[in-house]
Amino acid sequence: LPGIALPETLRITDAISEAVLYADLLVVMGPSHVMRDLLKGVRSVLDGAPIVVSAAKGIEERTLLRMTEVVVDVLGAALDGRVTALSGPSFAREIALGMPTAVTAASVNPGTCRYVQDAFRTPSFRVYSSNDPIGVEIGGAAKNIVAIATGVSDGLGFGGSSRAALITRGVAEIGRLVEAMGGDPRTVSGLSGVGDIVLTCTGDLSRNRTVGLRLGRGERLDDVLAGMAMVAEGIRNTLSVCELARRVGVEMPIVEQVRQLLYEDKPPRQVLCEFMRRESKPEF
Amino acid sequence: LPGIALPETLRITDAISEAVLYADLLVVMGPSHVMRDLLKGVRSVLDGAPIVVSAAKGIEERTLLRMTEVVVDVLGAALDGRVTALSGPSFAREIALGMPTAVTAASVNPGTCRYVQDAFRTPSFRVYSSNDPIGVEIGGAAKNIVAIATGVSDGLGFGGSSRAALITRGVAEIGRLVEAMGGDPRTVSGLSGVGDIVLTCTGDLSRNRTVGLRLGRGERLDDVLAGMAMVAEGIRNTLSVCELARRVGVEMPIVEQVRQLLYEDKPPRQVLCEFMRRESKPEF
Repeated sequence: LPGIALPETLRITDAISEAVLYADLLVVMGPSHVMRDLLKGVRSVLDGAPIVVSAAKGIEERTLLRMTEVVVDVLGAALDGRVTALSGPSFAREIALGMPTAVTAASVNPGTCRYVQDAFRTPSFRVYSSNDPIGVEIGGAAKNIVAIATGVSDGLGFGGSSRAALITRGVAEIGRLVEAMGGDPRTVSGLSGVGDIVLTCTGDLSRNRTVGLRLGRGERLDDVLAGMAMVAEGIRNTLSVCELARRVGVEMPIVEQVRQLLYEDKPPRQVLCEFMRRESKPEF
Repeated sequence: LPGIALPETLRITDAISEAVLYADLLVVMGPSHVMRDLLKGVRSVLDGAPIVVSAAKGIEERTLLRMTEVVVDVLGAALDGRVTALSGPSFAREIALGMPTAVTAASVNPGTCRYVQDAFRTPSFRVYSSNDPIGVEIGGAAKNIVAIATGVSDGLGFGGSSRAALITRGVAEIGRLVEAMGGDPRTVSGLSGVGDIVLTCTGDLSRNRTVGLRLGRGERLDDVLAGMAMVAEGIRNTLSVCELARRVGVEMPIVEQVRQLLYEDKPPRQVLCEFMRRESKPEF
């Protein structure tokens, strides 16, 4: 973060043992497809059972596990009640500048939530607790797909009404998936869902939104990806979320249209029109 | 709408009897404080019981009635199952240009919903049904207050994270009010709530957002209002929504802070900080 001084008490290391050994609390973070290897490195030096906070977003590809499930899968069942998913609308630079920010800490164990709330809270950084890591993590993964869809709409030159409709209907279909997986659909209307979706879909900083925007303007996916240093998480997650939806028998029309856009070369305009053309329905 | 031709079949009149008599479906629309008088005009010429679609937003000041309740109060109980609230993220210009738009039609009578869905639907205008006019109309009124709050945050120079937090926590407190009033809190996560809030809080066209923005930048409320042809609906609704919340015993910290900003001259920075400084809480 150029221009922002890190605290002098902060020690930075690339020796995983130094970072992990004797830690009371670990924060783990990275793209979803590297988390398993990163955690294997942690396991090789871990002693004891610290609180583990996952700030990673996404669904692991082959296994379809959420990130906190990958943590327990690799580090062992002793960590089950000690893992927390931290998620919500937050840009690192804005937090560092002390701008008001609010996020959610989700764990099945209320004591773990309270520990994480106390550890992270500052006068400008508010941490809400949730007992629904399913809702928080599925929302965190699926919002990237909605960000691609809203980017497509913006790229086609459609307006704020179209974008607001996609965001809202995206939230509704993610809620259906969360409920079918045993989570609470209300969670998706919270910071880790609606909050993060609003930030991602209206800011200009999101890789996922940029992918949609450029596809909407008529560029080819190969060309869009060629110019990006990192693959947008939403591209990976589209297949995982489609597969999860199929398994639990939930219809996700926006995610399905994004899948056809990315993986079957469906024209962007057709993707959006298909979504509008469906039967008149009850909203919930 | 400059540049957009109205259909030739459309007849425009200022004779209320011509507009109302023999109509199968009436759309009524206006600022919340003029609706009662407008409807009295309708009553004086009404013959029969048409479907009435209210596109008005807000809570009537003294009575604290929702707009569809004002319709029934003035036009008579015969209209009870024939009134619909139509609400959702939609700019007239974007609809006229055929940009994809989705809204909610809410009535306690499913048949009335279907009638309105069929009457309004086009290939680019999607109408979802809802059986929860309380949720749709309370959300439609309270979202203007959240728009003022996000304007304040933007005006103070805070970032996208702050705005997303206010939108999300605003949705949560509106959901609590809706539930306490006998509506469904899920409705607030739909088009008439989240969808419209996203459009209002991120577009630059909203009077309510503009009021907050200018207050956040340090202008005085009197000066802001002096330059506006119409009073922003949110300013009126702040008192009504506070009063509704008090009656049903629901805490609405964002609405309460906006009330103190508008009616007690509380400084904008303090308004936002107060909201952040509260106890760590469960998200729902």
